[in-house]
Amino acid sequence: MLLGRVTGTVTATAKDASLVGGALLLVEVPAGEIIALDTVGAGKGDQVIVTTGSAARLPSGATGAPVDASIIAIVDSVSKA
Amino acid sequence: MLLGRVTGTVTATAKDASLVGGALLLVEVPAGEIIALDTVGAGKGDQVIVTTGSAARLPSGATGAPVDASIIAIVDSVSKA
Amino acid sequence: MLLGRVTGTVTATAKDASLVGGALLLVEVPAGEIIALDTVGAGKGDQVIVTTGSAARLPSGATGAPVDASIIAIVDSVSKA
Amino acid sequence: MLLGRVTGTVTATAKDASLVGGALLLVEVPAGEIIALDTVGAGKGDQVIVTTGSAARLPSGATGAPVDASIIAIVDSVSKA
Amino acid sequence: MLLGRVTGTVTATAKDASLVGGALLLVEVPAGEIIALDTVGAGKGDQVIVTTGSAARLPSGATGAPVDASIIAIVDSVSKA
Repeated sequence: MLLGRVTGTVTATAKDASLVGGALLLVEVPAGEIIALDTVGAGKGDQVIVTTGSAARLPSGATGAPVDASIIAIVDSVSKA
Repeated sequence: MLLGRVTGTVTATAKDASLVGGALLLVEVPAGEIIALDTVGAGKGDQVIVTTGSAARLPSGATGAPVDASIIAIVDSVSKA
Repeated sequence: MLLGRVTGTVTATAKDASLVGGALLLVEVPAGEIIALDTVGAGKGDQVIVTTGSAARLPSGATGAPVDASIIAIVDSVSKA
Repeated sequence: MLLGRVTGTVTATAKDASLVGGALLLVEVPAGEIIALDTVGAGKGDQVIVTTGSAARLPSGATGAPVDASIIAIVDSVSKA
Repeated sequence: MLLGRVTGTVTATAKDASLVGGALLLVEVPAGEIIALDTVGAGKGDQVIVTTGSAARLPSGATGAPVDASIIAIVDSVSKA
């Protein structure tokens, strides 16, 4: 999974029907900016965990949606001590 | 998913039968240029959302096609406010 | 998918049984050189479309083969007009 | 798979329910830092093997969790002799 | 698939049970060093073909193992003539 920071939102009217009602957030991850479906109520500025590939469709809010990246957690702490 | 810009079209006669009738568009994404199957009527110059991997075959227009990237939305706005 | 150019062929005697009879072509794609299973009769110098991941096993000639990249079209034209 | 080094831990309260009880470790791999679900009792400083994609959900401790990276071994030795 | 060169072996006692008995080889591929499960008897110095993602679990020796990369052929020749 990827550690990321929510930097914005993306809106689209013409889209796959299964995306209706889903929040598409812009997330800064190590390799650059991606779009991820939010499944835990994340918002701008939150540090989040993004899962990719087929895992992105496992959260209940993402089932059947044509997504390859989902936010699955809002980070409390990253400890390297 | 990836934020991209449609930059052109790719045509091919010798191709997998399941691709017949599908629009293969050239899309500029952060890591470079890829080819994606259009499933929402996107056209040149449109800012789009591209999904990759097995997700690319979930839109109704892509079922069973050997594609690893599909356009699933035409972007209205990207807000970073 | 990836736009690529066939640059050569790879032969192997000691290989997975399901690869016997399949043409393994060397293809130059944006990120470098990969090996792809040919499913449309491509040859050296052809500009091709390569699909990756589980999509690579959907063409009839690739079913069950342990491949993660297949050539699914020979390009006629790429138009950016 | 990727050779990695555990560098820390990530905690999150707001997360997908299936992640509860799982240890999310920060792992340095060749391409940078990722988060992986631990399935073998790895700890900080351990050299580990990380598997990615759908393989990450095969270990018993990861079944059904929306993860795309899991630690599947603690390395004893890497020999290049 | 990736053209690679076997550069070493990785051993691990604490590992997923399904990896017991499998040879985990270090392989130099274009993007750097990865670990792949050997399924064709490859050894150090061999030029090999590595398949990745879910394809890596299709060879008989890899079924059910949590691997995302497997060696599926030992290369005889790469011809660019």
